[in-house]
Amino acid sequence: MVQTQMIQLQTHQDSEMILITNQIQDIVKNSLITNGTVTLFVPHTTAGITINENADPDVKRDLLLGLERAVPRNQRFQHFEGNSHAHIKASIVGFHKSILLVDKKLILGTWQGIYFCEFDGPRNRKLYIQISGE
Amino acid sequence: MVQTQMIQLQTHQDSEMILITNQIQDIVKNSLITNGTVTLFVPHTTAGITINENADPDVKRDLLLGLERAVPRNQRFQHFEGNSHAHIKASIVGFHKSILLVDKKLILGTWQGIYFCEFDGPRNRKLYIQISGE
Amino acid sequence: MVQTQMIQLQTHQDSEMILITNQIQDIVKNSLITNGTVTLFVPHTTAGITINENADPDVKRDLLLGLERAVPRNQRFQHFEGNSHAHIKASIVGFHKSILLVDKKLILGTWQGIYFCEFDGPRNRKLYIQISGE
Repeated sequence: MVQTQMIQLQTHQDSEMILITNQIQDIVKNSLITNGTVTLFVPHTTAGITINENADPDVKRDLLLGLERAVPRNQRFQHFEGNSHAHIKASIVGFHKSILLVDKKLILGTWQGIYFCEFDGPRNRKLYIQISGE
Repeated sequence: MVQTQMIQLQTHQDSEMILITNQIQDIVKNSLITNGTVTLFVPHTTAGITINENADPDVKRDLLLGLERAVPRNQRFQHFEGNSHAHIKASIVGFHKSILLVDKKLILGTWQGIYFCEFDGPRNRKLYIQISGE
Repeated sequence: MVQTQMIQLQTHQDSEMILITNQIQDIVKNSLITNGTVTLFVPHTTAGITINENADPDVKRDLLLGLERAVPRNQRFQHFEGNSHAHIKASIVGFHKSILLVDKKLILGTWQGIYFCEFDGPRNRKLYIQISGE
């Protein structure tokens, strides 16, 4: 069985990590699938998705900071829109995550949260959620 | 249902991003699967796969440039082949991408293209495409 | 069909890449699934998983070195535990990998090995392995 749906997210800052674990868990709870995989897919080129610590909010600030230092926005790039750093950060964290589903529950570690990563906001964004299994 | 096939790609430069969206879409169109997931897998250690903007070719140049600045090739590394930067870049963009398939169509954003990423070419490369679903 | 299991790994260093290809292959061999996908998922926020060269051990040392240079631990970060670099490196290599399974064999390139990546050890870690297919 395969079930795919889309949610919309409004981002509010230039760079931002938005915790979406609860939204994903609600969708999983309301599906007919008990065991399988949940695939999250971001259909944008300057936003991505990652998993990281859900407890101390400094972790998400440090993650954005560490990516900014590895790929600074003030480098000389060629792309006319001036947001190449956002394209590169999105490719680094990636556009999809697969999470295992066992007995109607997402297998996530105690400290793991799912984060939508905005790198060129604020924008109105989409996220696809596919649940496949049995 | 699960269907797996392999394509070959000839790369022409040391570092190169090759747009393969159309090739993947053709394979999807000719499969018997309507809804599910398409998993792309690169069986190499100095090449990877990513998704990014398909419109302005400067984006792919900037992506290679940003990765090169984050992981410069002229650092002192130990690996005797001298291509450690390529191994690291490949692990950063990753070796697989999962793309959702709904009603025989890949769910990709307007600006998203699928790119094979060569980091140590030119070489003859392989890419596996698996379509699974119903 | 979907089959999920967990293994434990003891890491021994602060930063470490542990080759787990054989363990994964043994689990695949003992499953009832012949064709499909093997999804590996790390339920932690300072450890990840990647694929890279299995031959020269210098490659794994260089990979840790390249990530350390891109995301140095001695930057000023805010997270009180002082391991922000580990959180960021884990998000960069990622928490899951999907590997194709064809005729009971993992599709891996000649030089590809699967590595559990410890970025804040030593610790006792878990890894989930899900095999789905037919």
